[in-house]
Amino acid sequence: MRRVVVIGIGTGNPQHMTVQAIDALNRLDAVFIPRKGESKADLAELRREICRRFISNSATRLVEFDLPARDPHEPTYGKRVTDWHEGIADIYCNLLSNEGEDAVIGLLVWGDPALYDSTLRILDNAAAKFDFPFETKVIPGITSVQALAASHAIPLNDIGAPFVVTTGRRLREGGFPVGVDTALVMLDGECSFTTLKDATHYDIWWGAYLGMENEITLAGPLDRMTSAIVTKRQQARARHGWIMDIYLLRRHRAPRVPEAQRMP
Amino acid sequence: MRRVVVIGIGTGNPQHMTVQAIDALNRLDAVFIPRKGESKADLAELRREICRRFISNSATRLVEFDLPARDPHEPTYGKRVTDWHEGIADIYCNLLSNEGEDAVIGLLVWGDPALYDSTLRILDNAAAKFDFPFETKVIPGITSVQALAASHAIPLNDIGAPFVVTTGRRLREGGFPVGVDTALVMLDGECSFTTLKDATHYDIWWGAYLGMENEITLAGPLDRMTSAIVTKRQQARARHGWIMDIYLLRRHRAPRVPEAQRMP
Repeated sequence: MRRVVVIGIGTGNPQHMTVQAIDALNRLDAVFIPRKGESKADLAELRREICRRFISNSATRLVEFDLPARDPHEPTYGKRVTDWHEGIADIYCNLLSNEGEDAVIGLLVWGDPALYDSTLRILDNAAAKFDFPFETKVIPGITSVQALAASHAIPLNDIGAPFVVTTGRRLREGGFPVGVDTALVMLDGECSFTTLKDATHYDIWWGAYLGMENEITLAGPLDRMTSAIVTKRQQARARHGWIMDIYLLRRHRAPRVPEAQRMP
Repeated sequence: MRRVVVIGIGTGNPQHMTVQAIDALNRLDAVFIPRKGESKADLAELRREICRRFISNSATRLVEFDLPARDPHEPTYGKRVTDWHEGIADIYCNLLSNEGEDAVIGLLVWGDPALYDSTLRILDNAAAKFDFPFETKVIPGITSVQALAASHAIPLNDIGAPFVVTTGRRLREGGFPVGVDTALVMLDGECSFTTLKDATHYDIWWGAYLGMENEITLAGPLDRMTSAIVTKRQQARARHGWIMDIYLLRRHRAPRVPEAQRMP
């Protein structure tokens, strides 16, 4: 039976790779590498860099393929995404059928396969239409959530308290989540923290390109940091041609406890 | 200036260690290893095992110390925890003062230092009372949240949807979190999922000793899995003398999509 190993590779720092991920890489017959086009070249190149750096097994092949784009003419967001997933699933089926019946194939996923990533859903889709059964195994990886907390040297949660992981769209449309004082916001292309009603009630810890050479972090009271983050984000995006960022918002009810001095 | 590097070591599988964590380990002058007493011996031994396996720098010393227990006579939960943290902070100060002025010290944290761990708070506490300033740096590690999702080969979130990370106590006292359909429950010694009102509305993915040799996982509709999980948990805890488990609950509104066949 063919096997697909979905490997979390961390957020752009090759040092995020775990021993388990490196071990899995070296047991693969082939790695499927998606090419996403010029604008996101950094991410395709990161996958190649990780293969160059960590694969010592000369039998492991790199198989590159062009990732389809979402259809901009499909008006419904949900259908646009599922159509796109169908297209990728077809490609996976095609690539898998080129491999031997007991081949072990790797897919490298930015961050962790469990967090805002579609690879597992696309594989379910592929499994439903592929002529032969295949098995799926997941290797966890460091997420941008963890890279953010590490760079700021902060805990995600208050003692015994819950937190929400959500998206920019949800924050814009629904406001700050109910029932929690901490929210991690991902997939936000629009600085949705600017839409919160009472900015003086929040602190923000923001980071972009986390773990990478050009990592940027900013933190402080939301009302005082908003314009700095918006400006910094625009400049960085213009300079690099792309940006990935994430932030933690904490609603505060009491004055903040002073923090230990942190390493830069 | 002294430096403290707080290193996430994953959930018990030494292969969870990242290249960054191994690199950091080998730049340390000393690792502080807490001894927690017989019942949690597995975890102290895991730290020693990680040092044995990954430290190649012969200059790195292991400094063991006895971790104080919480005072069972202190009736207030909050004060019981903060008193305990104070006690550990005093020990850190004492141990740090035994080290050179530019020493680099490591603390190994189960999982990731950002998730339901007190090390960063205790270091803030120590910094406030220590005679000399010190710097803190964090290295992220694989959490039990990720190990759970990987073992079940599932995504944490539905497409574009938020999720909550919370505790057993919160689930018992407040019910299923509002505003989300997915909750990750940690620090639950009491199988709090048994207190949910309409068990037929949920699926559960449960795991114990995740990443370790004796890992156990169970998943399915909550109403049909409850007694199996409760029984399995009791048996495992009796056999090993301790247990650490975590689970994901998903409220379902539509029938579940069949999943690809998974590797055992």
